[in-house]
Amino acid sequence: MSQAGKSSKKRIYLNAFDACTVGHTCPGQWRNPADHSSDKRNLDYWLETAKILEKGKFLSYFLADTVGGFDVYNGSRDPAIKIASEFPVTDPFVPISAMAAVTKSLGFGVTASTSYERPFLLARRFSTLDHFTKGRIGWNIVTSWNKSSALAMGLTDIIPHDERYAAADELMDVLYQLVSQQYRLLGRELTCCRLWELSISDDAVVKDKASETYIDPSKVRTIKHQGKYHQLESPFIVDPSPQRTPFLFQAGTSPAGSAFAAKHAEAIFVAGHVPGTLAPKIAKIRQLAADRGRDPQSLKFFQCLTLILGKTDEDAQTKLAEIKKYQSIEGGLVIFSAFTGIDLSKYELDEEIKPEDSKSSAIIQSAFSNLFNEEQGTGKWTPRRAAEELSIGGNGAVLVGSPQTVADGLERWVAEADVDGFNLSPVLQPQSWNDIVELLVPELQSRGIYWDEYNAPGGTLRENAQGKGNSRLRTDHFGHSYTYNRG
Amino acid sequence: MSQAGKSSKKRIYLNAFDACTVGHTCPGQWRNPADHSSDKRNLDYWLETAKILEKGKFLSYFLADTVGGFDVYNGSRDPAIKIASEFPVTDPFVPISAMAAVTKSLGFGVTASTSYERPFLLARRFSTLDHFTKGRIGWNIVTSWNKSSALAMGLTDIIPHDERYAAADELMDVLYQLVSQQYRLLGRELTCCRLWELSISDDAVVKDKASETYIDPSKVRTIKHQGKYHQLESPFIVDPSPQRTPFLFQAGTSPAGSAFAAKHAEAIFVAGHVPGTLAPKIAKIRQLAADRGRDPQSLKFFQCLTLILGKTDEDAQTKLAEIKKYQSIEGGLVIFSAFTGIDLSKYELDEEIKPEDSKSSAIIQSAFSNLFNEEQGTGKWTPRRAAEELSIGGNGAVLVGSPQTVADGLERWVAEADVDGFNLSPVLQPQSWNDIVELLVPELQSRGIYWDEYNAPGGTLRENAQGKGNSRLRTDHFGHSYTYNRG
Repeated sequence: MSQAGKSSKKRIYLNAFDACTVGHTCPGQWRNPADHSSDKRNLDYWLETAKILEKGKFLSYFLADTVGGFDVYNGSRDPAIKIASEFPVTDPFVPISAMAAVTKSLGFGVTASTSYERPFLLARRFSTLDHFTKGRIGWNIVTSWNKSSALAMGLTDIIPHDERYAAADELMDVLYQLVSQQYRLLGRELTCCRLWELSISDDAVVKDKASETYIDPSKVRTIKHQGKYHQLESPFIVDPSPQRTPFLFQAGTSPAGSAFAAKHAEAIFVAGHVPGTLAPKIAKIRQLAADRGRDPQSLKFFQCLTLILGKTDEDAQTKLAEIKKYQSIEGGLVIFSAFTGIDLSKYELDEEIKPEDSKSSAIIQSAFSNLFNEEQGTGKWTPRRAAEELSIGGNGAVLVGSPQTVADGLERWVAEADVDGFNLSPVLQPQSWNDIVELLVPELQSRGIYWDEYNAPGGTLRENAQGKGNSRLRTDHFGHSYTYNRG
Repeated sequence: MSQAGKSSKKRIYLNAFDACTVGHTCPGQWRNPADHSSDKRNLDYWLETAKILEKGKFLSYFLADTVGGFDVYNGSRDPAIKIASEFPVTDPFVPISAMAAVTKSLGFGVTASTSYERPFLLARRFSTLDHFTKGRIGWNIVTSWNKSSALAMGLTDIIPHDERYAAADELMDVLYQLVSQQYRLLGRELTCCRLWELSISDDAVVKDKASETYIDPSKVRTIKHQGKYHQLESPFIVDPSPQRTPFLFQAGTSPAGSAFAAKHAEAIFVAGHVPGTLAPKIAKIRQLAADRGRDPQSLKFFQCLTLILGKTDEDAQTKLAEIKKYQSIEGGLVIFSAFTGIDLSKYELDEEIKPEDSKSSAIIQSAFSNLFNEEQGTGKWTPRRAAEELSIGGNGAVLVGSPQTVADGLERWVAEADVDGFNLSPVLQPQSWNDIVELLVPELQSRGIYWDEYNAPGGTLRENAQGKGNSRLRTDHFGHSYTYNRG
């Protein structure tokens, strides 16, 4: 293919989606001799993985997080603990600096909840990482509201000690959660944003020996925030890092999530099962962003996918058959129950679940229709079928085949849903990463839809996502209005 | 000297005391061309330092922390910001995994406040680090009560929203701080301790493929804690790490601090200016520990010292003269004011401060008598003299001389104050570390008072401090009563 032909196609990004846990989206594979995901207690595992991903020129290595444990299935955490579904989970911030030391261009994304971390400490941790990675850190902004994690965090932190007011406050808290989760997100995120963007001028660090001035205090602002749950009065404590605000990831296409994404997110994780259902959601968010004056193409959408690659289609199917031997049906039930809030232990494995029989029919209908769509045929909705789907790749779609087959599939997602790249989950670790790097990446490059080199080798995550020179929030981004040096 | 002669002497430990800031205990030295402490935004700085310290077989690399900024002097943060005294400060947790990846035996200590971190997240971060370092992590337990850091953290988190109760609650909070700081410490620390020691059995991770059991849920306990400020109901989420509870550091010899140390600390940082005044304090804490049934010699006391080493005494004095050219008097004033709460800007630099003239005479008397003692002569107490003392080495003592002279000084501290080692602060970074490793360590080894090799090369921090095989809390330690597998 000619260079001209190459450049006419939309270039895609690859992102690696992982978690500091054993199975993540493929419960049960720890029993597969080819899987080493239980080596994650060993720092060497992370160093090796980061090197593989940089070799494949992944945009970033993204680590999900959860603290509460899955406890809907059978009304207990025990099934999740037994099969190691999101348990144990280590701190996703911890391995980053070690991986940064053995890479130059790979970005890193970390999930952190705005509900449980103090803005000042969270902002400091990200800024420290942004310095140490030379601008390669991203933040996946989430709220955590499941009861188990709230109990782990000590939710009563924000409830008055006086017992008489406890009940009223809990109600207020729940209402707040329901009607103003988005506001809450904004309040927290903006506090961090102010610390990152507004507190210290880019030229504050002067290191003037004659006047014994390391930082010019006139270029340091105290940030005051008087919020409902949070107050803060302090200058930020870290001098401006390469990106200032970490590259902002966000997941979800709910109405509240879409509005948030259109305003704040620079990269959005989406999870459709077929391109057709996803396309209007992405178009909607791009339109909302455009309505705010943002370049809609500056928002990068990553479809969540699990790839099972072989040298040939037959080879890939053989791999899939081997993987199926180890998939955990119980794990699928645990995940489905956690995602939907419906305890599947109350059904027989092969019992048909009729949405209209359920009090939560809308939730079930939505969950199943996401899994079983017109392309796959509807058939009977049973716990076993849901579990089989969810125990390989979680709630993301799965592509199986040769590099050519899988590349065709990716091109279809780009053409039909207007995604910008893929958030890829591994089945076997680190083998899945090696398969992508060795089999798929060369195929994508030969089609001209994948870079031969990072936008900015040795540069920042934002530059690699938005183009060389774009280390800071774009001028059309909401957060830019907080920039110290905006004038 | 014979091996028998060698073994009859008490062997000392060296600990490196640093902070993620520019000057730390030697404000102004960033202007000295020999100092590279302003390179701390670069990960390479940390990797190089860790390698130097491991070469010198330091027990651990210890990182202090502060979040609020020094703001007593002149009633403003500006002087501290200008001279870079504890500003900027990055997150001390972040560089650890990178340093762990390039070392095998060096331990790491991190300061974290029990006041501002959620026990569950703090416990998870330490356990993750304990896994990734293979058991080389320690925790310096502190409370943070200065107003500036409280404002940065949003102190009102624990104040009822209802304004009518705000005043009453603030008073209660202050009283709580004054009368039960120790209780508060215990409450928080014990929550972490329960998560670390009591939640998951050592044999919980079974990885039994046949029964699809990664973790045996019957060996995972839910921890319930109903405290005044914190509640928690959750199992811990990280499988047992090599040390479970990180090695516990603590600083301070106040009555409350001593009682805490006697119960909890495994290593205690002390800062006397002469051995004679320190000796009874150490003896007291060892006695308190013995009263609790602990082996008093298992508590390791580290005297804070700053060393200025030359090949000869004359060489060292030349180095000191060079260092004095860059010491920041303003920095000393800022530090003294922050430590004592007395704003020295209200005095002329050479004005005599008579404690009896001050409303805070007891604090001033104590602060000055710590600096100027019978060995140094009392003389006039002036701001300049205090600042000169504090701007080289902070409030720790300073030893200047050849390796022989300094080693003699260390031996005197061991003999007279019964310390177990030294918490050494650098003047110039990383040059001070190289001086210690290349000049002092060989002298200490030749005297038989320093190890030729770690107790447990490649082992845990606790093993290196307490002897090979001792990775877990000792059986005579209070925290051992929480151990899951105690029976």
